[in-house]
Amino acid sequence: MIKKISHIAVVVPKLEEAMTFWVDALGLTLDHVEHVEAQGVDVAFLPSGESDIELLRPVDEESGVARYLQKRGPGMHHICFEVDDIEATLARLKAHNIPLINEEPTFGTGGKKIAFVHPKGTGGVLVELYELTPDEPARRLERMDAMRHRLTEGRRVYAQGVRAFFAGLRYGRNEEE
Amino acid sequence: MIKKISHIAVVVPKLEEAMTFWVDALGLTLDHVEHVEAQGVDVAFLPSGESDIELLRPVDEESGVARYLQKRGPGMHHICFEVDDIEATLARLKAHNIPLINEEPTFGTGGKKIAFVHPKGTGGVLVELYELTPDEPARRLERMDAMRHRLTEGRRVYAQGVRAFFAGLRYGRNEEE
Repeated sequence: MIKKISHIAVVVPKLEEAMTFWVDALGLTLDHVEHVEAQGVDVAFLPSGESDIELLRPVDEESGVARYLQKRGPGMHHICFEVDDIEATLARLKAHNIPLINEEPTFGTGGKKIAFVHPKGTGGVLVELYELTPDEPARRLERMDAMRHRLTEGRRVYAQGVRAFFAGLRYGRNEEE
Repeated sequence: MIKKISHIAVVVPKLEEAMTFWVDALGLTLDHVEHVEAQGVDVAFLPSGESDIELLRPVDEESGVARYLQKRGPGMHHICFEVDDIEATLARLKAHNIPLINEEPTFGTGGKKIAFVHPKGTGGVLVELYELTPDEPARRLERMDAMRHRLTEGRRVYAQGVRAFFAGLRYGRNEEE
């Protein structure tokens, strides 16, 4: 059974620029950002009622989302429905000869079960199915910690770079003295 | 303030064929079909949690939706957000220099206030805003009555055609006699 629309995914070239419309102008709230290694994307979650707008920013240039962006430009990418039983939903789709990208659910980094339905079976819409699993909240925290680490690490490397830059300036000056 | 995702609109060439995926295979329920004269479309409403999937079938070949279908093929067309105050939301978008298709809300057939935001200001997504008005439920009933009348009238004309066809057959037979 379909429970609700989990999210609408929108491909964007840059998260910061996208926030100008979705957050500053439209008034949605940025809940958090996650890096999803398996899809090669950073994902910004903007809740809207019981659903999310998910902004996908390709990090890996070989990823499917990066290729989509190059080919079609930014815009709506897929609809994801939350289902109560993903195996039952996939069985029903197969019984109606709907072509699937994932014949069996794959296990996302969050421990959740997901599967994609091929757009040629849906009338041109990439449809994702998603079943919440009991261990997802814990896994989501892990992912957020990893993202936080990445950002902190980024700042650390940046700070090192700044220090090296000024050291370089000082070094040059010392050379001239 | 954004209250929720009202609907995701999907353009389809034929409603009946689209039902094979969305209703029979995926398991959504068809709530009802409305004819929206102003947009030149028949719209099938498929509730999914607090939002709807809306299947748009162009009836008028000169309509924007018909041109979209010819140019881009079937697929996702727009996201509609329900807002509590459409004038305030439009003012906020203008303050951020987001280009609007409707600078002021237009009044849909249901008495509801709607406005479209231009995709060039949203990162490639056609966004609709929608504010529920008190007289909408009554107007919706009127529209459904009009649709029912159209279907009933269609059946009446079809029945006339069938009678004329058999009368024609009989006429031919009489000629030969």
